[in-house]
Amino acid sequence: MRARHKKWAAPYIAAHPQTIVTDPDQLQGEWEDRFPKKQPIYLEIGTGKGQFIDTIAKLHPEINFIGIELEESVVAMALKKVIAHHRSNVQLIEGNANQVVDFFKPHQIQCLFLNFSDPWPKKRHAKRRLTSSRFLPRYHEILAPNAPIKFKTDNRNFFEYSLKSMNNYGLKFDDITLDLHHSKENEHNIVTEYEEKTMSHGPIYRIVAHFPDKTDK
Amino acid sequence: MRARHKKWAAPYIAAHPQTIVTDPDQLQGEWEDRFPKKQPIYLEIGTGKGQFIDTIAKLHPEINFIGIELEESVVAMALKKVIAHHRSNVQLIEGNANQVVDFFKPHQIQCLFLNFSDPWPKKRHAKRRLTSSRFLPRYHEILAPNAPIKFKTDNRNFFEYSLKSMNNYGLKFDDITLDLHHSKENEHNIVTEYEEKTMSHGPIYRIVAHFPDKTDK
Repeated sequence: MRARHKKWAAPYIAAHPQTIVTDPDQLQGEWEDRFPKKQPIYLEIGTGKGQFIDTIAKLHPEINFIGIELEESVVAMALKKVIAHHRSNVQLIEGNANQVVDFFKPHQIQCLFLNFSDPWPKKRHAKRRLTSSRFLPRYHEILAPNAPIKFKTDNRNFFEYSLKSMNNYGLKFDDITLDLHHSKENEHNIVTEYEEKTMSHGPIYRIVAHFPDKTDK
Repeated sequence: MRARHKKWAAPYIAAHPQTIVTDPDQLQGEWEDRFPKKQPIYLEIGTGKGQFIDTIAKLHPEINFIGIELEESVVAMALKKVIAHHRSNVQLIEGNANQVVDFFKPHQIQCLFLNFSDPWPKKRHAKRRLTSSRFLPRYHEILAPNAPIKFKTDNRNFFEYSLKSMNNYGLKFDDITLDLHHSKENEHNIVTEYEEKTMSHGPIYRIVAHFPDKTDK
């Protein structure tokens, strides 16, 4: 999501190096040192303004969360929430999802959230979609065996594309819903800022899937 | 779809043994002898009153079509259409999809249509759904390598279930649409009686998928 340039963003980010990382490849996956507790790591790619990660981190203190966001002005807003609420189990990355394999050790991540990623509607941009065959092998590399990918979107074409792309790559579906907000799965759903605005306009689609290990059929 | 008992059905079926088979396991897959031309065979399971098979057979004289329908009163109506229109490239079966492997030789079918099959909404009946893991191995046995399954439904829960079931079995998706009648795929869509009635009430969902051969990823 494009956001207006915010003058305060860069200095604010620079002032909080304990919570946000701007050169994550330097860390070489040594995330344990940045969290008070050694516990499972869940990752959100495209954290936006941070409502999702801030809320889920509050509900799940037994999990460490990392959020990646490309845009400085946007990740700065997520950082504000996380700082204000003292979420010691959240770390943020200002960085590009393209490089996600450089940010983590293999199989370091126990769960991946893709919330309302950019649908890149033009066919010639399909490879940029976060569920394309360009990205799936990278997730495969950083995710632990059987760790779920949880993908939400309100864009029908992007959802159809993602079903096909994830299926063709070999991911196994754990749950599919074409109307998350009217399904029993909604009980545990944590809404994003975008979801809050868009949910009255039409259904929210969701895929939960995992990469099969050798024991899967 | 339950239909009222029709007195004329049984004698009408008995009078047309050249077009409808009531003991298909006796044939042992010798379908070639029942069609004027030796050409690819497409199968519809759950032919209903026959509008789909009658229409597609007219449009595709280069294909032989076989329709299976369980209910006597219903298949008799399909038979009426096929007889009235002299569709020599259509054969009907009064029989149960459970036994489909006994009706054909391995890999004899080039395309399988599942049109608005019974959604069996109760969880305890899930195995009766024509996209369940009970049926998929049977289709696998009778379908030629890479032959598509084309599944249409207006039932959201059945569609979600089928996406998951087909994915989990290992089928590869060729096309997914959540609104067939408003997609470019609709150009070649042939509507069934049921579809005609239901299409104004909500979207028609479709999956096109195939069983991967060893060269698929």
